[in-house]
Amino acid sequence: MNAASTEIVFLLFDGVAPLDAVGPYEVLQHVPGASITIAAREPGPCRADGPGLALVAEAAYTDTAPDVLVVPGGVGTRTLVNDQGLLEWLREAHANTRYTTSVCTGALLLGAAGILDGVDATTHWAFRDALADLGATPVPERVVERGKVITAAGVSSGIDMGLTLAARLAGDDVARAIQLGIEYDPQPPFDSGSVEKADAQTVELVRTLLTA
Amino acid sequence: MNAASTEIVFLLFDGVAPLDAVGPYEVLQHVPGASITIAAREPGPCRADGPGLALVAEAAYTDTAPDVLVVPGGVGTRTLVNDQGLLEWLREAHANTRYTTSVCTGALLLGAAGILDGVDATTHWAFRDALADLGATPVPERVVERGKVITAAGVSSGIDMGLTLAARLAGDDVARAIQLGIEYDPQPPFDSGSVEKADAQTVELVRTLLTA
Repeated sequence: MNAASTEIVFLLFDGVAPLDAVGPYEVLQHVPGASITIAAREPGPCRADGPGLALVAEAAYTDTAPDVLVVPGGVGTRTLVNDQGLLEWLREAHANTRYTTSVCTGALLLGAAGILDGVDATTHWAFRDALADLGATPVPERVVERGKVITAAGVSSGIDMGLTLAARLAGDDVARAIQLGIEYDPQPPFDSGSVEKADAQTVELVRTLLTA
Repeated sequence: MNAASTEIVFLLFDGVAPLDAVGPYEVLQHVPGASITIAAREPGPCRADGPGLALVAEAAYTDTAPDVLVVPGGVGTRTLVNDQGLLEWLREAHANTRYTTSVCTGALLLGAAGILDGVDATTHWAFRDALADLGATPVPERVVERGKVITAAGVSSGIDMGLTLAARLAGDDVARAIQLGIEYDPQPPFDSGSVEKADAQTVELVRTLLTA
């Protein structure tokens, strides 16, 4: 780290959705001058919210001072919205960030910390009401940028958010190059990726599969 | 695990590109009946090929018997193409898989193992020649499916590959539901994600950024 570096901190916790964190990580690690820290309550492995996988944090978040904060979502957020120590740290960190960002239900943590009061924001489509209950104004868009707060929709949207953020930090040319570097030319085999596009049967099936 | 389960094994190693593994992981973990194992040479943390992050393997790959094998890429593949123990295991595993898959430079490991001899396959755009040198026939497509071998292009393409594979394993309806579950409705802020679309300046810049 030096005076010119941008300290980008990714929050981890037990029950994190790994793609929420790893999508923007894979983008932002290539921002020139970025210094990346993976942080949790304490250093060590954090279980993913799927089977068999853990991601390792190298630092305690209280030992970091993020210029850019990335808060992922996942099942673990259900209890963390009541973790007063984390919420207090989020407020303190946010006061000094250049950008405070979330992916998926990470927005619920920002909301619970009071950071989204009256702020347009997005989250996973199934949690828009929960986001509103925490004081935010849900906007059904994939990436919502309001001042220094950038929120992304569900899980995979963190890649799009990461590229938006890379453009703010390092310019459009760098963001375009990173997009090519990670070969992000998406070609999903179906067109069911948003709740506005998917049919009712698919919506019902996802509720069954994701709560199984 | 039971007789009806599908054993899906993700290979990890030091220098893995985390999105290569986590993209398809986030998709395939929701396939009904899937049993997921994260495996490396030995259990324990594997450093990502970016700063500050490690992913934890829970098993030794030699203790697994994959029905579906997912081989990610990353800088670590540069040495692993000469790891005769791994290559031998890949050959043995492949003989018994329903699907053998790769993301990004993971294809180079399949190639070095002889699995892609004369087979159409894809990899990260910057490694097509290296793939050809290993006996495969490079195809500049995002997901290439030939029999039970499915290869994906660079890094983020593993999400598209995962959805294709989910459809094969569990049907299109389930794959559509998973796509909605991870809200995969990509909206990249730029259109520079493939080497066929990006301009020469962007191609040059990515070579600088990714080797920095």
